[in-house]
Amino acid sequence: MATLRVPQVVPSPIEDSQQLRKAFVGLGTNEKTIISILAHRNAAQLRQIRETYHETYGEDLLVSLKKEISGDFERLRSMDRYGVLTCWQRVVMLWTLDQAERDAMLANEAAQKWHPGNLVLVEITCTRSAAELFATRKAYQARYKRSLEEDVAAHTKGDFRKLLVPLVSSYRYDGPEVNTKLAKLEAKMLHKAIAEKFYSHEEIIRILGTRSKAQLIATFNHYNDEFGNPINKDLKHEAKDEFLSSLRAVIRCLVCPERYFEKVVRSAIEGLGTDEGALSRVITTRAEVDLQEIKEVYAKRNSKALDAAIAKDTSGDYEAFLLELIGHNEN
Amino acid sequence: MATLRVPQVVPSPIEDSQQLRKAFVGLGTNEKTIISILAHRNAAQLRQIRETYHETYGEDLLVSLKKEISGDFERLRSMDRYGVLTCWQRVVMLWTLDQAERDAMLANEAAQKWHPGNLVLVEITCTRSAAELFATRKAYQARYKRSLEEDVAAHTKGDFRKLLVPLVSSYRYDGPEVNTKLAKLEAKMLHKAIAEKFYSHEEIIRILGTRSKAQLIATFNHYNDEFGNPINKDLKHEAKDEFLSSLRAVIRCLVCPERYFEKVVRSAIEGLGTDEGALSRVITTRAEVDLQEIKEVYAKRNSKALDAAIAKDTSGDYEAFLLELIGHNEN
Repeated sequence: MATLRVPQVVPSPIEDSQQLRKAFVGLGTNEKTIISILAHRNAAQLRQIRETYHETYGEDLLVSLKKEISGDFERLRSMDRYGVLTCWQRVVMLWTLDQAERDAMLANEAAQKWHPGNLVLVEITCTRSAAELFATRKAYQARYKRSLEEDVAAHTKGDFRKLLVPLVSSYRYDGPEVNTKLAKLEAKMLHKAIAEKFYSHEEIIRILGTRSKAQLIATFNHYNDEFGNPINKDLKHEAKDEFLSSLRAVIRCLVCPERYFEKVVRSAIEGLGTDEGALSRVITTRAEVDLQEIKEVYAKRNSKALDAAIAKDTSGDYEAFLLELIGHNEN
Repeated sequence: MATLRVPQVVPSPIEDSQQLRKAFVGLGTNEKTIISILAHRNAAQLRQIRETYHETYGEDLLVSLKKEISGDFERLRSMDRYGVLTCWQRVVMLWTLDQAERDAMLANEAAQKWHPGNLVLVEITCTRSAAELFATRKAYQARYKRSLEEDVAAHTKGDFRKLLVPLVSSYRYDGPEVNTKLAKLEAKMLHKAIAEKFYSHEEIIRILGTRSKAQLIATFNHYNDEFGNPINKDLKHEAKDEFLSSLRAVIRCLVCPERYFEKVVRSAIEGLGTDEGALSRVITTRAEVDLQEIKEVYAKRNSKALDAAIAKDTSGDYEAFLLELIGHNEN
């Protein structure tokens, strides 16, 4: 369930554009107005506002945002063609982009700066629908003049490349049909490879990379029933192994994305400092999808509310924007 | 260039449907009518006829075709849910299906009956545009309730699987941009792997599977300039090696599809008997694309016209239909 709240009566895209323009060009920027509008429009409405704004003022709304809004400049984050952004600017931009553009940009950053501990490509490929992932591949080509898979293949290597290239290229069947015989067979194949500690076995990659979510859930259930452990438990080692972490993330993202996202948010908040990149990514990509479930898992796991944790860890307009997106005042 | 000829004044889909219905249900089937209509309509027109026929008679045109038309029953070919078909029925059906449905069906047959010498998956993945291949993946799921890549992955193995799964999953960038530095670098990588006879090297698969056609052409040109041989010459061995044949087919399909198709047609006609499967596939999939170029390459390579060769090797309505599609009377 989404946490985004859209007012019952939504102003026209023209009115919203006018208000935003005023907020940008007046003396100082009016962040309250920006938040009150942008954090309460859905993807289709935001797209209309961007179109109307561009038609009216001859400038991309995102460029105006970048030029005009101030923020906590001590924390700078780079972001593609928009240059260096504060985390407040970045979260507003990520939110204002539509799903495919946003995911294309996140995937590009992840590919360019890829390292074995980076799970963003797994997240984007395994928590989105087949149609959304394909829209992202199209948006990626339009923006970067290359395919997503060629960039991922060129920036990764070894077992990670074997895993990630099929994932970014996947277009899974999303119907409910399950082949039980196949689920049993492939549970056995997975178990055999895992028992041999051959984690990058081509059958593991093939099964995780091509089967439908419904089929994989059946396979993992059978794995648990037949071999006595959830597959992710068998993929856990005492020693830190980033390839195993990736495999577990694939499975969590496919089977229980809200638990995967809860962990990302928790890690982003826990400890000294905040990983605003991860926090902004999860909030902006899930606010219209399943952030309600993520909040519930978070509250259960951490015995505190996610909005309280975010409020404690962030500040200023950045905090205000995140809290609006996660439906803070509702609780 | 296409060889398909559409009359200047095209009857309405309603008129075409009525004529076809009459040809099916009259005493005996009137193949002349079927040929005169279906072999002279383009994909968009055929789609309209199928829709109109279905609305009017409550039956899929392809099912009527299967039920009613006679043919040279001595040569039976299986074809999916339409059951066992003669090569005449099969060529009419292949032609009447739209590109995505046709390719999905051909890819399914190729995956189910896959063997190392079967190049149909290479052909479909490397001669179609990125958008066409994606349309095929969608049509495949709609028809078979599974993804193309999961079927290909499940029915292939070893080096062939490593090559074919990325190919069927690919969505290549199709812009004209070329990165010359990258072309030089990757030409070297290809040459090194080929010199070591490590033909299934992951860099070969990565480069062939993900780069855009424009980029690959630059890479192969550089390979030729720098290392003195066209890459396909270096991929040739005296001993027959089906993986090498597949690699060469990938390159030919990407770079010079008309030469690839000429060879398929030549092999289908040469020797005793005819490979109607291959012949029908090439004629129906290329008649609206580049069959003119294929005919020209064929004439040059074999010192005879393709239509004469087909006329010699085939007979009856099957022959007549193929000759109409390749624009026989024009020559």
